[in-house]
Amino acid sequence: MPVGLSEPAVLLPIAGVRWGVAAAGIRYADRNDLALMEISQGAVTAAVYTRNSFCAAPVTLARQHGKTATTRYLLINSGNANAGTGAAGMKVALDSCAAVADAADCKIEEVLPFSTGVIGELLSAEKIQAALPHAYADLSADHWLKAARAVMTTDILAKGVSRQVEIAGKTVTITGIAKGSGMICPDMATLLAYVATDAEVAPVLLQRLLQQAVAGSFNSITVDGDTSTNDACVLVASGQAGIAFTAETDVGYAEFSVAVIGVFQWLAQAIIRDGEGASKFVTIDVQSGFNEAECRQVAYTVAHSPLVKTALFASDPNWGRILAAVGRAGIENLDVDKVSIYLGDVAIVCGGSVDVSYTEAAGQVVMDAEEITIRIDLGRGLAQGRVWTTDLSCDYVKINAEYRS
Amino acid sequence: MPVGLSEPAVLLPIAGVRWGVAAAGIRYADRNDLALMEISQGAVTAAVYTRNSFCAAPVTLARQHGKTATTRYLLINSGNANAGTGAAGMKVALDSCAAVADAADCKIEEVLPFSTGVIGELLSAEKIQAALPHAYADLSADHWLKAARAVMTTDILAKGVSRQVEIAGKTVTITGIAKGSGMICPDMATLLAYVATDAEVAPVLLQRLLQQAVAGSFNSITVDGDTSTNDACVLVASGQAGIAFTAETDVGYAEFSVAVIGVFQWLAQAIIRDGEGASKFVTIDVQSGFNEAECRQVAYTVAHSPLVKTALFASDPNWGRILAAVGRAGIENLDVDKVSIYLGDVAIVCGGSVDVSYTEAAGQVVMDAEEITIRIDLGRGLAQGRVWTTDLSCDYVKINAEYRS
Repeated sequence: MPVGLSEPAVLLPIAGVRWGVAAAGIRYADRNDLALMEISQGAVTAAVYTRNSFCAAPVTLARQHGKTATTRYLLINSGNANAGTGAAGMKVALDSCAAVADAADCKIEEVLPFSTGVIGELLSAEKIQAALPHAYADLSADHWLKAARAVMTTDILAKGVSRQVEIAGKTVTITGIAKGSGMICPDMATLLAYVATDAEVAPVLLQRLLQQAVAGSFNSITVDGDTSTNDACVLVASGQAGIAFTAETDVGYAEFSVAVIGVFQWLAQAIIRDGEGASKFVTIDVQSGFNEAECRQVAYTVAHSPLVKTALFASDPNWGRILAAVGRAGIENLDVDKVSIYLGDVAIVCGGSVDVSYTEAAGQVVMDAEEITIRIDLGRGLAQGRVWTTDLSCDYVKINAEYRS
Repeated sequence: MPVGLSEPAVLLPIAGVRWGVAAAGIRYADRNDLALMEISQGAVTAAVYTRNSFCAAPVTLARQHGKTATTRYLLINSGNANAGTGAAGMKVALDSCAAVADAADCKIEEVLPFSTGVIGELLSAEKIQAALPHAYADLSADHWLKAARAVMTTDILAKGVSRQVEIAGKTVTITGIAKGSGMICPDMATLLAYVATDAEVAPVLLQRLLQQAVAGSFNSITVDGDTSTNDACVLVASGQAGIAFTAETDVGYAEFSVAVIGVFQWLAQAIIRDGEGASKFVTIDVQSGFNEAECRQVAYTVAHSPLVKTALFASDPNWGRILAAVGRAGIENLDVDKVSIYLGDVAIVCGGSVDVSYTEAAGQVVMDAEEITIRIDLGRGLAQGRVWTTDLSCDYVKINAEYRS
């Protein structure tokens, strides 16, 4: 079950953005599996996509469309990733965008398509075309939560959050939703996150903000190390709050960007809390490295270790597995005598071997908690890196052995 | 249960090598957990060790001893890895070697220590010292299988094999044993493998042969991606068969090296067949790459993917997960339109999407088997790489959540 996560009680509307949903019957019966986001004229949209070489047809098409036109609609389906589907899949993605353009009287290039679900099966353009009018008719500023539910696959809970910040007497609102539970080790963004604000943000600045926000959120999480073919993250600035940013030095931009990054971090952490089979929420903090890259390398090595993950599942303070993972992380000339490792506030390793003050009872208290921080001090520099992850449970294996997603 | 593996019916003795075992009560009750290998005067020994930065005390000491003296004894205990134990652990390793030197009247430097088991707990030198006389008294040329059993931890079956090759009218024998089941992704050698031959091999040639044999065997397998702190592999040439090699061009060396490499490959594959929770034996063949390194990178990415591994466990031909893993393997400028993927002889992906001839029924037949080959053609060069791995089962999680090793 999700760790310290519940569905959002309220998601604040963003002026200039509406969501509509429909049940297209793509894979799931009796639930919405199609979501349409409408973005008002004059809004600015930034997006980042997976770096997986086998990226899905909708990712390829969304990249193209985003480069050639202003974005007016996002069309998202769950239940089928439309990945590994070749030219036929590309035609389905294009036909789906055309259906939106028909209904909304806009250009095909103004529609970005997104898909999530099983890889390698052809998506039905007909089902999407048939359901689209219902999604279009459903458009409303208050349908963020409905959209969050419609894009779920193996997610247990819908994930969304809102933040507000006062700038120069005006209220700026930011709302975001995300889905994702397995195949989570984003390399650019995670499998489908949509964040919107009513602030006005210059295009270059918005793209920079998106990349900054993604680096410390979706690009710092892992469930299973498997980067998806369909990862995508979109940030929309509708510009209707009466406040505009064109540079990082603008008054209020610092507060605004902190709020945006906060939304991204909350969503990224929510994906970990609802990770497949998750029973723990784990923060891995690596500090005192030469550079951020090696800190992240150590953090990811620990986060991906099946032996560390099963020990976390068992609440077993088997710190030797953490030590072994740090040791195999491929850090050149690591002086283990300078490495310290902590479970929460409990020092476990100091000078390359067990800390003299360590007791199994103290380690057990930390491991019994649902939220655990593993801190690793490399003792050779000033850089740091942080990754969030979860444990590896029997349920993870069952979910992925029994369910084809 | 181990996949296509049974205990060796017979392991041939090697003239000049004897094994003795004893029950030291280190962790397990009522079983042998100490093994002593005696190597005759005049034999040549080569060894390779883990590259894990946090290598264990016995690994550090064995490296030192191997450099400074001819090796006469190998002392191996199971149940405790003596890793992450600092100066105290180093003293235990040294005291254990001293105990052998006392019993056998040799120099401490002539003894190499090895440990396998739980990381981070202090090993008892007293227990080893008390049991050592029993192991010494037990020394026999016929105790290879007893030794293979004594070094087991989570292994279900003892692993050993013998080969013979006729060279210039003389019979050369090679016998090897290995242990290992989890924390298996060797980076130099696997957790404890001991191979001996009665051929005479010059030291430099023996070390080269060992490295060549390890590259295509222990360094090409993975259970869980976790490189151990204690990996070690030793090759002994006792020189008592009346045949000597000093160069690769010597008559009969080709046949001899093929036989040695065959023993290494058999042992490495046996470790996968007895991998923790294994229900499948999987060969990942990557071909037509620019170089061997990128082929191995793709093979390891597929082999480590929890989603591929759980699909293998479920016998689910969910090939989209293989495609996604290939796509995220970090190969620069991979042209997915040239990539082909095969399950056994069944083409699943061709030109970046599902092969037109593919049927789920054909894929299912391959996946239902216990032994599965995944072949990936990168379509961009002449190099190849091969990795052996296993699936990720509920039992893997249970073994590593419930048992501390």
